[in-house]
Amino acid sequence: MTAILKPTIEADYTFAADTPFALECGAALRPVTLRYTMYGELNRRRDNALLVCHALSGSAHVGEWWDGLFGPEMPFDLSRHCVICVNILGSCYGSTGPASINPHTGRRYAGDFPVVSIGDMVRSQALLLDHLGVDKLHAVVGGSIGGLQALSWAMLYPDRVDRCVAIGAVPLSALGLALSHLQRQAICNDPAFKNGFYEAEAPPAAGLSVARGIAMCTYKSAQLFEERYGRAPNRNGEKPAEKLAHRYNVSGYLDYQGEIFIRRFDANAYLIISKAMDNFDFGSDHASQEDNLRRIKAKVLMVGISSDWLFPAADVFALTRRMQEAGVNAQYHELESDHGHDAFLANADLLVPLVKPFLHEDEMKKAACGLALTGER
Amino acid sequence: MTAILKPTIEADYTFAADTPFALECGAALRPVTLRYTMYGELNRRRDNALLVCHALSGSAHVGEWWDGLFGPEMPFDLSRHCVICVNILGSCYGSTGPASINPHTGRRYAGDFPVVSIGDMVRSQALLLDHLGVDKLHAVVGGSIGGLQALSWAMLYPDRVDRCVAIGAVPLSALGLALSHLQRQAICNDPAFKNGFYEAEAPPAAGLSVARGIAMCTYKSAQLFEERYGRAPNRNGEKPAEKLAHRYNVSGYLDYQGEIFIRRFDANAYLIISKAMDNFDFGSDHASQEDNLRRIKAKVLMVGISSDWLFPAADVFALTRRMQEAGVNAQYHELESDHGHDAFLANADLLVPLVKPFLHEDEMKKAACGLALTGER
Repeated sequence: MTAILKPTIEADYTFAADTPFALECGAALRPVTLRYTMYGELNRRRDNALLVCHALSGSAHVGEWWDGLFGPEMPFDLSRHCVICVNILGSCYGSTGPASINPHTGRRYAGDFPVVSIGDMVRSQALLLDHLGVDKLHAVVGGSIGGLQALSWAMLYPDRVDRCVAIGAVPLSALGLALSHLQRQAICNDPAFKNGFYEAEAPPAAGLSVARGIAMCTYKSAQLFEERYGRAPNRNGEKPAEKLAHRYNVSGYLDYQGEIFIRRFDANAYLIISKAMDNFDFGSDHASQEDNLRRIKAKVLMVGISSDWLFPAADVFALTRRMQEAGVNAQYHELESDHGHDAFLANADLLVPLVKPFLHEDEMKKAACGLALTGER
Repeated sequence: MTAILKPTIEADYTFAADTPFALECGAALRPVTLRYTMYGELNRRRDNALLVCHALSGSAHVGEWWDGLFGPEMPFDLSRHCVICVNILGSCYGSTGPASINPHTGRRYAGDFPVVSIGDMVRSQALLLDHLGVDKLHAVVGGSIGGLQALSWAMLYPDRVDRCVAIGAVPLSALGLALSHLQRQAICNDPAFKNGFYEAEAPPAAGLSVARGIAMCTYKSAQLFEERYGRAPNRNGEKPAEKLAHRYNVSGYLDYQGEIFIRRFDANAYLIISKAMDNFDFGSDHASQEDNLRRIKAKVLMVGISSDWLFPAADVFALTRRMQEAGVNAQYHELESDHGHDAFLANADLLVPLVKPFLHEDEMKKAACGLALTGER
């Protein structure tokens, strides 16, 4: 592993200072700030941008959480590409979200923050790209909610996206909706939640920890948990056969993940982004979904993860087929991993051979052409 | 559907009035009451008893929750069998549990109730059978935690069990342990929980409801949820795309299940039984597990449920193989259903052809013998 990859630029872009930014839910935000990073440089034609979209609890620092995809001859090759990553609307890592100060009240939005959609996130990113002078993306790439944004980009801005890579990303199933709902219930039931109007120093930590625990179960796979933890008791000598509060190893792991998470993430932001994940779909009914799928002009690479039970590979495959039937140039590849949904991060190395040819296709064609010419001589 | 099948006898048996009933955790209970039912009559030799063991939130009223297995020429045929069902130790439907009054203090056990094991439940049931004069069971039958009890019966009392039917029952996987833990966390985090010392009229309802919701997800299957609920909004006109608190149909269903459950079940009993489920295994290490499996003399019918992800069919199959390798007369059948773990209740009709031949084997052999003799004449 190399040192942490630092962005060339990390900055905030603020818009909608006068005209509010209208959201799909009917509410609006004024103003909106987006924290973004750029790795590498835009070329003169500004046509070498890769927009990387992050997942639920991610940040604009894609060089930290997807460092395995960066490098010479890697999918994100900064000698060719300029990688842009934007902290999503509703998050707590620099962009406008529930923990931001509402300039009109001087207080945090907190429980007043409106529902945002994946489409809202993408439309806000499009305004940032306008500001950066990027008319067309070489590609938009993401896993999980990042993949939903990538799909939404291809659908909402068909003329601005050349290639779309969506990994472990489809409209959530009923089971996924159910588990999302229970996570939000765990947070909202916490007496510290106070309808979202908690103090920054007294958040609904216990509820958020349980929510994160449920989410971790959906991000990992039964196989992985079995291999790693099995039925071993918690490592500190707890005896689950004797005391109700004593845990198995996997429970100690989940509690620890909860402890880390409550220190780094805002509960209201979690609710807003989790809801955006739930609400993503291509349209409100089959007909509108087909219409929207037909709009897509980008070449699409859909990646299913074999052990993913939150966004099952079979669902990703089925969506790819639907896209193809709608005339989209979509292809499906499967990432074989027992890491579950999380494999898009945990097994980034396995993504390289899938994503790189797709992103470098033009260069590879040029190189092949060169070779052919050489051969003719 | 016929009218609800009423037990011939419903009674309480109290024991350990003087000598405490020692539990595996090291604690003891004095006295212990078991609420039990009998359907049909014990024959003169008292060798026609079927002990049916119930699951987490079940009761001794097996005629209500497994009515589909009762009837002439059905698995539970009261012209041949006497069906006995015992509310498990730690439950809240008549047997000693956390909501029971501790006669030594005059108060509910509440948070002081000790951890009980599946083995403790089974040993208490054995004392009841001693009292009833039943030395040997024609069969012990159960699904889920009921199946764990059936397996425990075969292991702890090899000479008292002729046949054992365990449906969707194996030691819980790491993912199962994780989801159990999160359910208990949801209850314990509820400020009404008060370390278990809540008033009967002010239980930790919100926490128990979330726990039940998580459990319902594990009892059902992704397929079933998808078919039944899909991505439809909650039926009362809620608009999840507009309001954070507005739900999808599946979430409304889970909340409703939670509401029903908190009215009928005690949170402390839930914790105790959920912990017993987690703790069930055949031994503390591989060697002791093999030794214990070798002890089993009963014929064993293991049923895996194709869409069960809490007690996966593959795990039930693997356990059957382990039993066979340990010399147990064990057979595996699979119940094909998309109902998930719950299929042992929801698809009881599909159990009939699997369970009936296994339970009626002797009679069928006799009948076949009679036919053969007739043929010879």
